[in-house]
Amino acid sequence: MIIIMEPGATKQQIDNVVEHLKSHGFRINLNYGDVMTVIAAIGDKRLVQPHSLNSFEGVREVKLIQEPFKLASRESQKEDTVIEFPNGVKIGGLERPVIMAGPCSVEREIDGLLEVAYAAKEMGCQILRGGAFKPRTSPYDFQGMEEKGLQYLAEAREKTGLLVVTEVMDTLDLPLVEDYADIVQIGARNMQNFKLLKAVGKYSKPVMLKRGPAATIREFLLAAEHILYNGNPNVILCERGIKGFDSTYTRNTLDLAAVPIIKKYSHLPIIVDPSHGTGKRYLIEPMSKAALVAGAHGIMMEVHHDPDRAYSDGAQSLNIEQFKKVMASINQLIGRIDYSNKHAVV
Amino acid sequence: MIIIMEPGATKQQIDNVVEHLKSHGFRINLNYGDVMTVIAAIGDKRLVQPHSLNSFEGVREVKLIQEPFKLASRESQKEDTVIEFPNGVKIGGLERPVIMAGPCSVEREIDGLLEVAYAAKEMGCQILRGGAFKPRTSPYDFQGMEEKGLQYLAEAREKTGLLVVTEVMDTLDLPLVEDYADIVQIGARNMQNFKLLKAVGKYSKPVMLKRGPAATIREFLLAAEHILYNGNPNVILCERGIKGFDSTYTRNTLDLAAVPIIKKYSHLPIIVDPSHGTGKRYLIEPMSKAALVAGAHGIMMEVHHDPDRAYSDGAQSLNIEQFKKVMASINQLIGRIDYSNKHAVV
Amino acid sequence: MIIIMEPGATKQQIDNVVEHLKSHGFRINLNYGDVMTVIAAIGDKRLVQPHSLNSFEGVREVKLIQEPFKLASRESQKEDTVIEFPNGVKIGGLERPVIMAGPCSVEREIDGLLEVAYAAKEMGCQILRGGAFKPRTSPYDFQGMEEKGLQYLAEAREKTGLLVVTEVMDTLDLPLVEDYADIVQIGARNMQNFKLLKAVGKYSKPVMLKRGPAATIREFLLAAEHILYNGNPNVILCERGIKGFDSTYTRNTLDLAAVPIIKKYSHLPIIVDPSHGTGKRYLIEPMSKAALVAGAHGIMMEVHHDPDRAYSDGAQSLNIEQFKKVMASINQLIGRIDYSNKHAVV
Amino acid sequence: MIIIMEPGATKQQIDNVVEHLKSHGFRINLNYGDVMTVIAAIGDKRLVQPHSLNSFEGVREVKLIQEPFKLASRESQKEDTVIEFPNGVKIGGLERPVIMAGPCSVEREIDGLLEVAYAAKEMGCQILRGGAFKPRTSPYDFQGMEEKGLQYLAEAREKTGLLVVTEVMDTLDLPLVEDYADIVQIGARNMQNFKLLKAVGKYSKPVMLKRGPAATIREFLLAAEHILYNGNPNVILCERGIKGFDSTYTRNTLDLAAVPIIKKYSHLPIIVDPSHGTGKRYLIEPMSKAALVAGAHGIMMEVHHDPDRAYSDGAQSLNIEQFKKVMASINQLIGRIDYSNKHAVV
Repeated sequence: MIIIMEPGATKQQIDNVVEHLKSHGFRINLNYGDVMTVIAAIGDKRLVQPHSLNSFEGVREVKLIQEPFKLASRESQKEDTVIEFPNGVKIGGLERPVIMAGPCSVEREIDGLLEVAYAAKEMGCQILRGGAFKPRTSPYDFQGMEEKGLQYLAEAREKTGLLVVTEVMDTLDLPLVEDYADIVQIGARNMQNFKLLKAVGKYSKPVMLKRGPAATIREFLLAAEHILYNGNPNVILCERGIKGFDSTYTRNTLDLAAVPIIKKYSHLPIIVDPSHGTGKRYLIEPMSKAALVAGAHGIMMEVHHDPDRAYSDGAQSLNIEQFKKVMASINQLIGRIDYSNKHAVV
Repeated sequence: MIIIMEPGATKQQIDNVVEHLKSHGFRINLNYGDVMTVIAAIGDKRLVQPHSLNSFEGVREVKLIQEPFKLASRESQKEDTVIEFPNGVKIGGLERPVIMAGPCSVEREIDGLLEVAYAAKEMGCQILRGGAFKPRTSPYDFQGMEEKGLQYLAEAREKTGLLVVTEVMDTLDLPLVEDYADIVQIGARNMQNFKLLKAVGKYSKPVMLKRGPAATIREFLLAAEHILYNGNPNVILCERGIKGFDSTYTRNTLDLAAVPIIKKYSHLPIIVDPSHGTGKRYLIEPMSKAALVAGAHGIMMEVHHDPDRAYSDGAQSLNIEQFKKVMASINQLIGRIDYSNKHAVV
Repeated sequence: MIIIMEPGATKQQIDNVVEHLKSHGFRINLNYGDVMTVIAAIGDKRLVQPHSLNSFEGVREVKLIQEPFKLASRESQKEDTVIEFPNGVKIGGLERPVIMAGPCSVEREIDGLLEVAYAAKEMGCQILRGGAFKPRTSPYDFQGMEEKGLQYLAEAREKTGLLVVTEVMDTLDLPLVEDYADIVQIGARNMQNFKLLKAVGKYSKPVMLKRGPAATIREFLLAAEHILYNGNPNVILCERGIKGFDSTYTRNTLDLAAVPIIKKYSHLPIIVDPSHGTGKRYLIEPMSKAALVAGAHGIMMEVHHDPDRAYSDGAQSLNIEQFKKVMASINQLIGRIDYSNKHAVV
Repeated sequence: MIIIMEPGATKQQIDNVVEHLKSHGFRINLNYGDVMTVIAAIGDKRLVQPHSLNSFEGVREVKLIQEPFKLASRESQKEDTVIEFPNGVKIGGLERPVIMAGPCSVEREIDGLLEVAYAAKEMGCQILRGGAFKPRTSPYDFQGMEEKGLQYLAEAREKTGLLVVTEVMDTLDLPLVEDYADIVQIGARNMQNFKLLKAVGKYSKPVMLKRGPAATIREFLLAAEHILYNGNPNVILCERGIKGFDSTYTRNTLDLAAVPIIKKYSHLPIIVDPSHGTGKRYLIEPMSKAALVAGAHGIMMEVHHDPDRAYSDGAQSLNIEQFKKVMASINQLIGRIDYSNKHAVV
């Protein structure tokens, strides 16, 4: 930890900070500049709240040296986390990327969901997505089928052999969702719902954590840290677009550089959701391919058997014919990527 | 609702959209431009998902005409909502602004909290703040005293007569928090935790809803709409800073224009939290005064009896001496504002 | 300067950085942590490009300790810069705030401009604003009257005694604008037009520098530094709103905390433009008053004798009647601020 | 154009707007909703300033239907613009993407530049980049070699046959830069320097226009429109990262979705600069490949013969060995893309 003192800080003020740090077991190096003094404190930052140092008189700024996430960091685990499912599907590391496809929300009759699931199976996808509990910006929008939706997903899994990923929105619903899902999704708007992070950390199913729309990469990895810290090592990260200043042509700004950054700083798998990340159907194909070439461990995309009648997110959903075309192109690309050699295209 | 068709949209594509809208009870006006066709659909947008129209072939863009929030809007209620508490404190409308003060989190022994509470009382504050359940970015940070913290707050209320505002983080904890709090706070990171919004909407205690760091004003008012829609009309909005591109000197960008904007579009009271909004102690006084002059119905600020030893947010907390000085200045300003005349300073 | 090495940095890599720094005259302190090594380099950062250190193998991050602006900093000049004009008007320090008012652009006949100028004079304003060269997002919009517009402004100055502030967009036009203006404005979109900054730095007229829509406060002060460094000490800063993620109700996010922040880190005067900062007429009054209470040294606002027919920015311009009402309220507030005592409202 | 009136707008207010629009040649459709009235105005928006309508009493919002750029739009030109150089190099459309490589700034002796140029030639690049005039955030940083630098670039062109792209910062320098450059670059910070846009529009050399760090895609295309409108049809757009809320691991947020969006809305070529777009050397390869797969017409990247001693941007520059490795990987990918078939990877 580095503490930068104000230009006019007094010796007394510097001593106060130094004493406080020493009393918490830090070793101290003092660096006197011409204008300012810099205190380097070496030790475990958990022993003292770095922010609390900001409150000492004479302190201008406190800078962390080490990333504040530990279990999620490359330093704590050099090898990539690879999550393996009973049916042999693997996510992470140098494994072939997975494709998660399905409707935004499970709706009405099961037939539409099955139609999508069979198409996903046919095109080589591994995982079926679908929301039974729906976070909706407006209370006037469709809120999801809840348990009935989970049952539909389970039936689709039985018929196709696809794994199921679905969102949990609240600790109260978690036991129910854990019963049905193969992967439990934490939505972007719940990325810092710490009670929910803690709860899924105590369960055993792999968790897919979506990046919050205003979350820095550091905050994103700290959210994952909450899950790891509570005992669940199987976290899949998902970049799904962040809030930017330009929402004329897209809902969000898809931050693809997050993929190689996260692969540098963490061992956890990272996938990309271009459907939410852009909000536009015509951008799914180019952004999926870009994400894969940038090193993503998978893609999540929305497909609906009848997007014009979808209760949510029709505009960013592919219909089945479009989906098959996009998947053909993605499969061609995946066939060219050498996963044993850092995702080079050969 | 306005639907803008692509320049090359076919007659068939236009007809599809028109038929779909008519079948949902909309009246249609067609506006043929030289390049594009614009469909004006008059009726209740709840009858159709505007976003689903985006998924029709040939549609470029769908624009809402009316704000998507209803109960929170000025159109639905012309008069300001004024929330009145049993002890006579009022929040909203042309009432004198309220000051909420207290530590970020309730910690250790009760003495520190009481010291702050007595100072708040002395300086004319109406409400004591303090977190018993703490949302923390890192799992290694202090997570709150939970029920013990609520008991301390209740004791401080009894001793000072101040009202208590405290955060609830999860539906499971809600009954407990409702038992102790006078105002239940939804934190910024839970602004779109829709299960929690729904739950507080079904309880009777007034709710203070903090703006999410990436929430537009429209999303903020839609989050309030979830609470209103579920039956609780007593919502206090709180602007607490949004994510911006400059975090060198502040934690967040405090969006003070949100105050007069919300007063134009909604009847709900709006207060400002300059402690979280800036993250810097020296900015609390100028930003509090600016907020009051801009028309805020109140201020929430962090005060700690010993900020250097605070478990959270010490850097943005005033100590008691500083707090008294800031409050003296704020009280002087409040004494100059003519609340019966639109907050003019006279 | 602090250089943080990667966790796996080798001794050779650390030595390379240290040697490089020593050869440029820096004193070095090495801080070995358990995981990472931190190099503290004490000396003048101008001797080495901090960014170039980033390129050494094994370097994770380079952090500056001192602000990179010097002449603009409080450290280089403790006393506030106060700019005094021949007619006695002063800007900065503890002086009474100045009001700059006038149309966005000078247009058509001089009568409209004069009408505004007389109203500004009547209401106690000190400075007339008006654009003769207009930066316009679209080439199809009105581009300004150029020299004719400058002549109108000069005539209005002669008739009212107001000072004139007007924008220069290009080094080629600078001699002309310097001939007419009392204050030369650099627009937000030219904040990092370094050739223009250098050029106005070599002239003698005071410069009003508007903050770029994506400029951090540090970049803003560095832009001012270009002017100071080239010889012109009379720089007035102007906060005019930054790009944010919410442009539904405002054009920009007005960053009022920038006022007290800049007053802490710099001695230069800082004023606020709520017209561009919000883009909405009804927000000018509350945001002007908030800016003044937050410590702004002045306000710039747009007034047009006939906003409905304005060639630019009508929506954010007050008409003369509205302007007089707003100014009455502002004057009342200014009368209450004690400038000899840190802008307290008494 | 769509004008949305306030809920309480009077008939007189509606009539005022309608009369104003009719007098400017617009056809009017009135759409009366239950709460608000919407005026659809059909005609050429250049006949009236849409923003000026905002200033009418009773107007809530003015929405454009057509994009405000015309010459840059797909509607005005269906076929892609392909820029062809005398030596046969082509940029745009379905042509093989071009690679622009070279140092951030031309420095010291010519040998380093030549070393980079020969490597670029060897690896199949078409264009040499290098700055002779340097926009620098701080006045204390290296400002460029000016004409001497241009001479070096010309010599490198002569020796390698590469085309030269270099930045112009000011209208005064334009004749000089036009003498030496094959492509004249407008830097990100000058994207809305309208005098400069107008000036390069009147010259004949192709222009590479970089996106401003806070520019929306619409503003970006409007900046291009200034060049096209002044007579120069050869504009290459360059995405180079935008300001975001997270600058911990990157300088900017690279907005790759801008590539397919711009290809939908405009016929102009669009390239990507991952060096500035991320600021980190290790991100150049994955982001370059992602950009190409997303459909970019080219890549611009920084290469320096000795990045540790670079006067600018060393951290984001590849050294020659790294560059050759990255280019080998990029060439492999380019060899797999079918440009006659929408950039599919086969």
